[in-house]
Amino acid sequence: MIVVMRPDATEENIQTVIKTIEYCGLKVHLSQGSEVTIIGVIGDKSKLSKSNLELLEGVDKLVPVTESYKLSNKKFFAGPSIIKVGNCEIGGKEIVIMAGPCAVESREQLLASAHAVKKAGAQILRGGAYKPRTSPYSFQGLEEEGLKYMAEAREETGLAIVCEVTSTQAVETAAKYVDMMQIGARNMQNFQLLKEVGKTKIPVLLKRGLCATIDEWLNAAEYIMSEGNPNVVLCERGIRTFETSTRNTLDISAVPVIKAKSHLPIIVDPSHATGIRDFVEPLAKASIAAGADGLMIEVHPDPSKALSDGPQSLNPEAFMKLTKNLKPLIELMGRSFNNHE
Amino acid sequence: MIVVMRPDATEENIQTVIKTIEYCGLKVHLSQGSEVTIIGVIGDKSKLSKSNLELLEGVDKLVPVTESYKLSNKKFFAGPSIIKVGNCEIGGKEIVIMAGPCAVESREQLLASAHAVKKAGAQILRGGAYKPRTSPYSFQGLEEEGLKYMAEAREETGLAIVCEVTSTQAVETAAKYVDMMQIGARNMQNFQLLKEVGKTKIPVLLKRGLCATIDEWLNAAEYIMSEGNPNVVLCERGIRTFETSTRNTLDISAVPVIKAKSHLPIIVDPSHATGIRDFVEPLAKASIAAGADGLMIEVHPDPSKALSDGPQSLNPEAFMKLTKNLKPLIELMGRSFNNHE
Amino acid sequence: MIVVMRPDATEENIQTVIKTIEYCGLKVHLSQGSEVTIIGVIGDKSKLSKSNLELLEGVDKLVPVTESYKLSNKKFFAGPSIIKVGNCEIGGKEIVIMAGPCAVESREQLLASAHAVKKAGAQILRGGAYKPRTSPYSFQGLEEEGLKYMAEAREETGLAIVCEVTSTQAVETAAKYVDMMQIGARNMQNFQLLKEVGKTKIPVLLKRGLCATIDEWLNAAEYIMSEGNPNVVLCERGIRTFETSTRNTLDISAVPVIKAKSHLPIIVDPSHATGIRDFVEPLAKASIAAGADGLMIEVHPDPSKALSDGPQSLNPEAFMKLTKNLKPLIELMGRSFNNHE
Amino acid sequence: MIVVMRPDATEENIQTVIKTIEYCGLKVHLSQGSEVTIIGVIGDKSKLSKSNLELLEGVDKLVPVTESYKLSNKKFFAGPSIIKVGNCEIGGKEIVIMAGPCAVESREQLLASAHAVKKAGAQILRGGAYKPRTSPYSFQGLEEEGLKYMAEAREETGLAIVCEVTSTQAVETAAKYVDMMQIGARNMQNFQLLKEVGKTKIPVLLKRGLCATIDEWLNAAEYIMSEGNPNVVLCERGIRTFETSTRNTLDISAVPVIKAKSHLPIIVDPSHATGIRDFVEPLAKASIAAGADGLMIEVHPDPSKALSDGPQSLNPEAFMKLTKNLKPLIELMGRSFNNHE
Repeated sequence: MIVVMRPDATEENIQTVIKTIEYCGLKVHLSQGSEVTIIGVIGDKSKLSKSNLELLEGVDKLVPVTESYKLSNKKFFAGPSIIKVGNCEIGGKEIVIMAGPCAVESREQLLASAHAVKKAGAQILRGGAYKPRTSPYSFQGLEEEGLKYMAEAREETGLAIVCEVTSTQAVETAAKYVDMMQIGARNMQNFQLLKEVGKTKIPVLLKRGLCATIDEWLNAAEYIMSEGNPNVVLCERGIRTFETSTRNTLDISAVPVIKAKSHLPIIVDPSHATGIRDFVEPLAKASIAAGADGLMIEVHPDPSKALSDGPQSLNPEAFMKLTKNLKPLIELMGRSFNNHE
Repeated sequence: MIVVMRPDATEENIQTVIKTIEYCGLKVHLSQGSEVTIIGVIGDKSKLSKSNLELLEGVDKLVPVTESYKLSNKKFFAGPSIIKVGNCEIGGKEIVIMAGPCAVESREQLLASAHAVKKAGAQILRGGAYKPRTSPYSFQGLEEEGLKYMAEAREETGLAIVCEVTSTQAVETAAKYVDMMQIGARNMQNFQLLKEVGKTKIPVLLKRGLCATIDEWLNAAEYIMSEGNPNVVLCERGIRTFETSTRNTLDISAVPVIKAKSHLPIIVDPSHATGIRDFVEPLAKASIAAGADGLMIEVHPDPSKALSDGPQSLNPEAFMKLTKNLKPLIELMGRSFNNHE
Repeated sequence: MIVVMRPDATEENIQTVIKTIEYCGLKVHLSQGSEVTIIGVIGDKSKLSKSNLELLEGVDKLVPVTESYKLSNKKFFAGPSIIKVGNCEIGGKEIVIMAGPCAVESREQLLASAHAVKKAGAQILRGGAYKPRTSPYSFQGLEEEGLKYMAEAREETGLAIVCEVTSTQAVETAAKYVDMMQIGARNMQNFQLLKEVGKTKIPVLLKRGLCATIDEWLNAAEYIMSEGNPNVVLCERGIRTFETSTRNTLDISAVPVIKAKSHLPIIVDPSHATGIRDFVEPLAKASIAAGADGLMIEVHPDPSKALSDGPQSLNPEAFMKLTKNLKPLIELMGRSFNNHE
Repeated sequence: MIVVMRPDATEENIQTVIKTIEYCGLKVHLSQGSEVTIIGVIGDKSKLSKSNLELLEGVDKLVPVTESYKLSNKKFFAGPSIIKVGNCEIGGKEIVIMAGPCAVESREQLLASAHAVKKAGAQILRGGAYKPRTSPYSFQGLEEEGLKYMAEAREETGLAIVCEVTSTQAVETAAKYVDMMQIGARNMQNFQLLKEVGKTKIPVLLKRGLCATIDEWLNAAEYIMSEGNPNVVLCERGIRTFETSTRNTLDISAVPVIKAKSHLPIIVDPSHATGIRDFVEPLAKASIAAGADGLMIEVHPDPSKALSDGPQSLNPEAFMKLTKNLKPLIELMGRSFNNHE
């Protein structure tokens, strides 16, 4: 960390900062510039957590030099990390596609979805049993009943299953059924929930918050990992901007940025990012081309009857067409994908 | 709700939309424009929740005409709502100031804060016992021990107390101690938590999410209120934008917008909005001038030693000066405030 | 356009709105909902430009149903438009790459760049002679001298040339030299400048503004086209968001959105979008995969000596490697590209 | 400026950076941290403009320590600057209100506006003769004819006049008529235009761009000032965010931030910031309470007939009421205002 002093800082001000840093057991490196003085802090900066250097007389600002996340940081473990979910591996050579309905609505709807996505090459079935909805008057999910249908779909198809968890109680229940737990965008900084899934060791799909920076996202991963669960997969799903022609703005740059900063795998959810069915295919292709390790796609046997997010869901035929179109691109990128053809 | 058809929609497309709406027990109103046809939906639109009209052939878009929140909506109850917290009322004539440290750090620090803010006219003591922090390596709060110090401070000073809750478990524990529970910005769409505090009837301070629209914020209030707890106070604390010279961007317009849309009281937290001590006073004044019902201000007996948010905290002298400067402005606005002078 | 009345609007209020609309020579369609009344306006809404319906008693809001841009709108001309620049065509089967230095710095630097990008398959040479810079103390461009070097480079290589114009005077001068004029992001709503380039008929590369919505962008194209110049190519170059790990946030969704709303070609500039050399290749691939008609890439013979935007510039070897890597992807997408191999 | 090296930078990398800096005639200060090495640059960093340090092997990032604007910077001139416009002074004790219609529509409309705003205490008449409009099909202004009506209104009322200029040609024409030239939000980074108004010495009202940071805004002021025109007044008019319940989001914090960073006066335009008449008064009050030096308010003799921005315009009675309500607040803030009562 660097302490930048104000141009009008006195020698006494500078000495006070130095003494404060040294008092915490750290070393300083003083640099007298032509306009301002800069004080470098040498050592573990967490030792400074109890001293608010910003408030000392004459201090202009503190500039962090290193990231606050460690376990997810590529600087400390080059990776790549490969996360095993059921029988598939995310972050390895294979591109992993998670697909299924936004919400589990009924046994029939889910089993139909599962067979359809299996047939088209998906390795993981998604389906929400606990739905976070903006309005309390919208459909909120089948809860444990939905999880049971998910487990049944796994039995029938061999697909691994991923479900969103929205509370401690949901984590406890879901842990009995799922292969992977999803933390949704709205809960990315629900730190209590992050700690709970961290304690389980079950792989976690961590969606990026609507207005979370990439640093905050990696710090959220750190919450899970620091509880002893290294099995984190990141999922870019669009951020909130001023643009309204898509539901969110897919931050495609997040893919190479994460690859540069972290060893964790990253997948992309073009369905939630745009909210519009017709844009799923071009953005799925863009994600693969940018280097993503997988995709999450909403598929519903009859999107016009979906209780949630119908407009962005593909029907089984459209999803089959999508995976067929993706396969040659995936192979061109040096990755593999088996759509059973 | 209005269904806007595409310019190339056929008569058959239009008839299908009409039949779908009527099938749900609603009436339609057809309007044939020069370029496009518009179909108005008459009746309770929640009946349409199972039919995804957007997906029908020929439909361009759906335009909602009415808000999805009801209980917090001024159109259904003109208000203003006055929320009683301890001995004070928020939303009435009096301006209510909540003040205290960001985090409860020790018994001494808290009691010193409590006496200081009481002396300067605050009616409610704030202090975090459960701290949501971006990095898992930052100080996380004293939890129940912190709540006990808060309760002790109430005994000593007569101040009401408000604490943030971050999980179901924290709600249960806090309910035994506090006069008001705070939902923090990062949990504004933690719907499970909103329901939990909704079940308690204890007044709730609902902070706006970093990237929540005002409509989403009022829908979050709706989650609390629809569980049977009408005692919601809104708190604007800055939104995330591209500007970096302040920690967040205080959306001062939220004050008159909320007054126009809802009957709930709204207060402003200039400390978190800017993150910079020197800007607290001008923005506190701006908030009162814009019509806010109160303020939340961070005060610490020794900001340079604060474990959290020291740079934005006022010391007791600065807080005393602030309330003295605010008093004539509050009275000019036709409100009242007693700073014991 | 639709006029939504307030729930408390009186019959008299409604009649006043109806009369106002009819007075302008338009027809109305009245729809009495269960909560609110909606009044549809039938006919050319520009006739209403002098009557502020929003201000009439009882009006809640106006909801536009159709877009304000016409000439660039796919609803009125399906397209695709193919724009001829020098000997190449943008928007047809071929993917067009514009490459070269951010700024023309010297004759040698520019000619070296031109030969390098030509060799790697670029069809258009870019190079700034008029540089809009945030600080007045940064390098501002060689102006007409730069344009002369550009023209010389065209003579030597056969490449078409594109240069940014920043003022009426620059348009006049550039018109004598260039094959295509660029409107930069900061001038996207410099309407005077848009009209000037509209009068020339020279093809225009219209970069999206840092915080321009897609609708505003298409309206800016409309300014150029309504002056009689239909030769507009759109360029997505990143928008401003809260994320700081890239210089801007590339809005990759803009590619399919533009394809859905307009017949104009769209290219992507991954160099400016990210500001970081290492991210140019993954985002160039993502752009092609999403359906872009071309790319704009910064190439400098020695990026470490560039006067502007060195960190995002590729050197000739890296650019050669990029086009080699892009070629099979371009062909997989059903497009063509000749990198002279 | 500080150069932060990567953790894996070699001794040779570090030496290359040092030599590059020294080659430019600057000194370095080396600081070997526990994780990374930091190299401080001592001296005038503009000497480094030709060497792209970011690109040297082993460099992680450059961290600027000082601002790039000088003439507008409070660190170099404490101020406050007081700008004389006609007979009034902006930035002194008096609060200056600029008011009038968004666009000059006719002689009658303008004169009626001028008399009305004069009567209510405004010192400067605003009125647009050159209108930047999103769509080319909207009303574009009366141009020179509008300026003549403005000058006539000045003769009749003694008010100073301010008009927006949108091109070099408009600057030349306006210079013959106006007391102050306005640079609109869309042209804040039209650097050519900034230089043109910089050459005139006529006071400039510089509106903040829709997505301009405060640093970019002060750099835009620097463009004007570095041409020899120190008479710059800043105007906050709302920034673009995700929130849609107001037209823009008024960044009220900009007022104290500018006061901390610059000696230039700052006024606020609540009419454009919100786009809604009813919010003008609360935000005008908030602006004064936050320390603004003045206001810009849209007033139209008959807002329901305004050709531009009617919904945000006050009629003369509402404006009279506004200034009456503002007066005691202005005086409480230690400023003065004469509304002729």
